[in-house]
Amino acid sequence: MARIVMKFGGTSVADLDRIRNVAARVKREVNAGNEVAVVVSAMSGVTNALVKYCTDLSPLHDAREYDAVVATGEQVTAGLVAIALQEAGVDARSWQGWQIALKTDNAHGKARIEAIDGATLIARMQMGQVPVIAGFQGIGPDNRVTTLGRGGSDTSAVALAAAMQADRCDIYTDVDGIYTTDPRIVPKARKLQKIAYEEMLELASVGAKVLQTRSVELAMKQRVRVQVLSSFGNDNLLGSDLPGTLVVDEDEIMEQAIVSGIAYSRDEAKITVRRVPDRPGIAAAIFGPLSDASVNVDMIVQNVSADGTTDMTFTVGRADLARARAVLDAHIATIGFAEILSDADVAKISVVGTGMRSHAGVASTMFKALADRGINIQVISTSEIKVSVLIAADYTELAVRALHTAYGLDAA
Amino acid sequence: MARIVMKFGGTSVADLDRIRNVAARVKREVNAGNEVAVVVSAMSGVTNALVKYCTDLSPLHDAREYDAVVATGEQVTAGLVAIALQEAGVDARSWQGWQIALKTDNAHGKARIEAIDGATLIARMQMGQVPVIAGFQGIGPDNRVTTLGRGGSDTSAVALAAAMQADRCDIYTDVDGIYTTDPRIVPKARKLQKIAYEEMLELASVGAKVLQTRSVELAMKQRVRVQVLSSFGNDNLLGSDLPGTLVVDEDEIMEQAIVSGIAYSRDEAKITVRRVPDRPGIAAAIFGPLSDASVNVDMIVQNVSADGTTDMTFTVGRADLARARAVLDAHIATIGFAEILSDADVAKISVVGTGMRSHAGVASTMFKALADRGINIQVISTSEIKVSVLIAADYTELAVRALHTAYGLDAA
Repeated sequence: MARIVMKFGGTSVADLDRIRNVAARVKREVNAGNEVAVVVSAMSGVTNALVKYCTDLSPLHDAREYDAVVATGEQVTAGLVAIALQEAGVDARSWQGWQIALKTDNAHGKARIEAIDGATLIARMQMGQVPVIAGFQGIGPDNRVTTLGRGGSDTSAVALAAAMQADRCDIYTDVDGIYTTDPRIVPKARKLQKIAYEEMLELASVGAKVLQTRSVELAMKQRVRVQVLSSFGNDNLLGSDLPGTLVVDEDEIMEQAIVSGIAYSRDEAKITVRRVPDRPGIAAAIFGPLSDASVNVDMIVQNVSADGTTDMTFTVGRADLARARAVLDAHIATIGFAEILSDADVAKISVVGTGMRSHAGVASTMFKALADRGINIQVISTSEIKVSVLIAADYTELAVRALHTAYGLDAA
Repeated sequence: MARIVMKFGGTSVADLDRIRNVAARVKREVNAGNEVAVVVSAMSGVTNALVKYCTDLSPLHDAREYDAVVATGEQVTAGLVAIALQEAGVDARSWQGWQIALKTDNAHGKARIEAIDGATLIARMQMGQVPVIAGFQGIGPDNRVTTLGRGGSDTSAVALAAAMQADRCDIYTDVDGIYTTDPRIVPKARKLQKIAYEEMLELASVGAKVLQTRSVELAMKQRVRVQVLSSFGNDNLLGSDLPGTLVVDEDEIMEQAIVSGIAYSRDEAKITVRRVPDRPGIAAAIFGPLSDASVNVDMIVQNVSADGTTDMTFTVGRADLARARAVLDAHIATIGFAEILSDADVAKISVVGTGMRSHAGVASTMFKALADRGINIQVISTSEIKVSVLIAADYTELAVRALHTAYGLDAA
């Protein structure tokens, strides 16, 4: 017997057939003797349509009204899944955020969860009833409906799993787990049985967009074991019986590979600010204005100084490139650079693994593998469990495949 | 300065242009110095789609889940109208049933309003804010969302007007008021400036389906002055400036006509149970089983007895005819009739007016007008303010026109 939170995203509840499929999956867990709570997103397309209503009426709409409008998508799904479960003979009832209550702060449109009363839900589960909870929403201190921001249902599910002291939070998605890299690029990519929270965070933020970063952070903080698995299978739409990937504390992973996965992102652009004076405060002079303009800066490299000036290279989101250049141009007087070079035709390749904390030579394996293919490294940045390089975008697939092989990740 | 509740139905908020139109109308009332609250239905088509989801998943779905699902339609409209009002420069916020709170009983799907906390809404209006309230919904004693049944937004509006001590409840509809009869049949039909609650009830229940009967009953009980008017006008979709029809206490109507309107209904069918024993309890033996089968019986006529038996004639809804016959056939042993005759090809014509309480000769005017056109009367029934006859359906238009003229209702 286990207590499980099952979360289904928009494509998993896109129509009534899929909702019946969800009910059948839930029933299977209930029949296996588990205590189950369900968290649902809006039917796919619904949230976008509701958002469009709001933005069409007013680009600068009241976020509190936006929340009241868009939160309805999940309420509909929660009611429908409860009906489908009852029809399948499973005791169930729907819960909206304010009914639980799932309390958030007042930041409408991107609220943060502050407290969840799990006692009532636990009592219902112990009575054999399945709570079907509208994800993505809560109630603010102003007694109004709040939403957690796009993709917030993952965060709802993890937070509810923590509040209900669940043994596991199963996130049903379009994919059947977390792979060592993108299987579209590397056919020999393997599904990971387990991955550490920290690795998942690094992989999610650099391209493997399976779980919302925030939900992984919350899972790590609250020590919630998260399983990513597919809601679509071959057996009569009942979903695959294959296990997905467990996202857990690294202590739970016995045989930790040195490198767990290879991630890539083509959403980056490189900027080099040439010949800036090499003086204290120069980094602040460059990155302060960018931050003020909400431009996120990622990799930063400062070359050694020559003749009292230096070059500063960094990456920004590709969509922010023009804005970043404009911001820097506007501050030429305070920064004092010679020129700005930029290149949107780059890719960031990262190798990720908690095992590299205790292993030397991870970076040099990377550099050698890339050099052997004649791939030039433009920028390097490292963290405790990740090494990232910036290369020309044309070499993305070649680089990912080479690294996947070099770290022994290829399936047999 | 007046305090006004403005209620907009589904077609009035069917798309964003119409929602902007609603906002412009509300703004006009606000700018005129009035305190305004708005009650909205779901965008047209939305409720039907949500209902279909529920019934497709389970014909016998849980009414509590049905309520959670279908109530979302009004929540969306309330949020959108609030956004449109803010965009138009009017301070506004949306309210869901549970936020007000609008408390109902536990009869999910057809809940009755028990109490409304009007104080908060009044305070907001006095601050210059327009409450935009999701109609059709409330919160039950189980802390779950309830709905008031189809068309319940009219009832919401009237109940809220009473709770907020509003001077008037304006119901915006597809029509621009209440007419002396159906203008499609009688081009000379006149719009009534005022009509008494009792008259409205009789007209609504026999065919002039403008206001939900329940909302009129509530308005009468709570003495809420209701105005029916059109949300569509000629001046740039901003709605007509013509006044609609006020539904008020009859004391408020100075020059009460003897007959206010002529109503008709072709949704009836006539049943005659032939040669039932003329004994005490025979009416109960016939109508008890029909009532148990939820068949509504309207006009009832019992002929004088001859040879110890009598004929019982009555009308039922046309859709219920087959069921009513089957119920009676099943009870032939306890009733003991000779045969059942039925006719679905009938129409019920009613003349309605509170003035007839104090005037003689109203019925005979009706009978003479029909006789002059060679129209045979099959059944007659009368109430304090109404005379109804059943005639062959073919004569419907002829009869309505003749009566409209006979009672002096034709426009000059």
